[in-house]
Amino acid sequence: MNRHTHGSRFDVIGFDADDTLWRNEDYFTAVEQRFVELITPYATHEVDPMAMLTEIETASVSVTGYGVTAFALSMVQAAVRASAGQIPATVIDDLVNSAYRIFDHPVELLDGVIDTLTSVASTHRVVMITKGDLLHQGRKIRASGIDHHFDQIEVVATKDADTYRRVLDRWGIDPTRFAMVGNSVPSDILPVLSIGGCGIHIEYHTTWVHETIDDHDGEFTTLSSIAELPHWLATEI
Amino acid sequence: MNRHTHGSRFDVIGFDADDTLWRNEDYFTAVEQRFVELITPYATHEVDPMAMLTEIETASVSVTGYGVTAFALSMVQAAVRASAGQIPATVIDDLVNSAYRIFDHPVELLDGVIDTLTSVASTHRVVMITKGDLLHQGRKIRASGIDHHFDQIEVVATKDADTYRRVLDRWGIDPTRFAMVGNSVPSDILPVLSIGGCGIHIEYHTTWVHETIDDHDGEFTTLSSIAELPHWLATEI
Repeated sequence: MNRHTHGSRFDVIGFDADDTLWRNEDYFTAVEQRFVELITPYATHEVDPMAMLTEIETASVSVTGYGVTAFALSMVQAAVRASAGQIPATVIDDLVNSAYRIFDHPVELLDGVIDTLTSVASTHRVVMITKGDLLHQGRKIRASGIDHHFDQIEVVATKDADTYRRVLDRWGIDPTRFAMVGNSVPSDILPVLSIGGCGIHIEYHTTWVHETIDDHDGEFTTLSSIAELPHWLATEI
Repeated sequence: MNRHTHGSRFDVIGFDADDTLWRNEDYFTAVEQRFVELITPYATHEVDPMAMLTEIETASVSVTGYGVTAFALSMVQAAVRASAGQIPATVIDDLVNSAYRIFDHPVELLDGVIDTLTSVASTHRVVMITKGDLLHQGRKIRASGIDHHFDQIEVVATKDADTYRRVLDRWGIDPTRFAMVGNSVPSDILPVLSIGGCGIHIEYHTTWVHETIDDHDGEFTTLSSIAELPHWLATEI
């Protein structure tokens, strides 16, 4: 009945955004390197500044969320703690400014994204489910130049099974006819599998350490590039 | 036809949350007072620390949004700048921790909210449109104990006419049959008036300085307490 998805296993293809459609983590990694360079001269002997930053981020992410301001504050706290309070305020200011420059970064689409989206949107209904700061994600979506491909776009606070169930239900999408495409196994794949959907993992060269998992409790497809998606979808009938 | 709204000018009543349903700004004001106390001894002669904080917040709010992490970072930047870089890192850490404690604050409903919501929800469809950090707002909504009154709840990044138009359209609400209740004239009232809706301003003892406006370009009702809302609605037929 639906001309788009005739013959496909899926009615709707969902896309993650950060590090699936456009570059994101690289900017944070670059600022983390600056953090290590700036803090190391002031760090007390027993402290690894990067390990301390990761520890503070991990402890606060469930409260502060994923975003530039939360990241900047974790650096501030890690700088103070790693230096036993001896870090100069000017260095802290430099760190905050470095993080804030992430906000100014133009959206850099990843290789193959435009062709892939154009292709997939011609055969399937396409939606975006992205996690993070509402304002910053909104600006990136508008600046991306690809938002017209998406039938629905939702910025969510967390990507767990309940979130996917709620969002798909609101959009009238049957999870068993839904495939989610993303670079993060715990955020984009496992919760979708758990509600009966399909997950298509796109490998990204950087995976945030907080999201690296060891045990996969489900079967899913991994593609080495988003450019492989149209062909994979065409074979899944 | 609709038993709820029979005889009313409105099909749906929308509520703002922060400082309309529950206390919010007071926690920020208390931390600002701590900021002034902690920074003043280090401030250079020509600087008013509070004025500097307000200036930095105003400059960054369109990028960082309204939330605890953005507020904490503005304090960090204001502390560094007001002290010409001389503020000890331990004081910065104290400020960040003080801001983070806002996250831990239990939700304190304002006087009259429970009775008002119970009453209004018995006569009208009730929705919530609140601005801010997705995670923090979500936690407050779940902890509030009043979320069951709301037919729909949306956390938005900004409260402008386009946002209201988009949200009401998605929920199938005719703006001319919609009244928005809130403490902020620029966020809750004026944009709703501009799309043909009605605004009901509830006075709050603290109004964020960034939201104080001088010229009102529309007519709206101001109530001194949310408890007056059911009676006001009953007379608007």
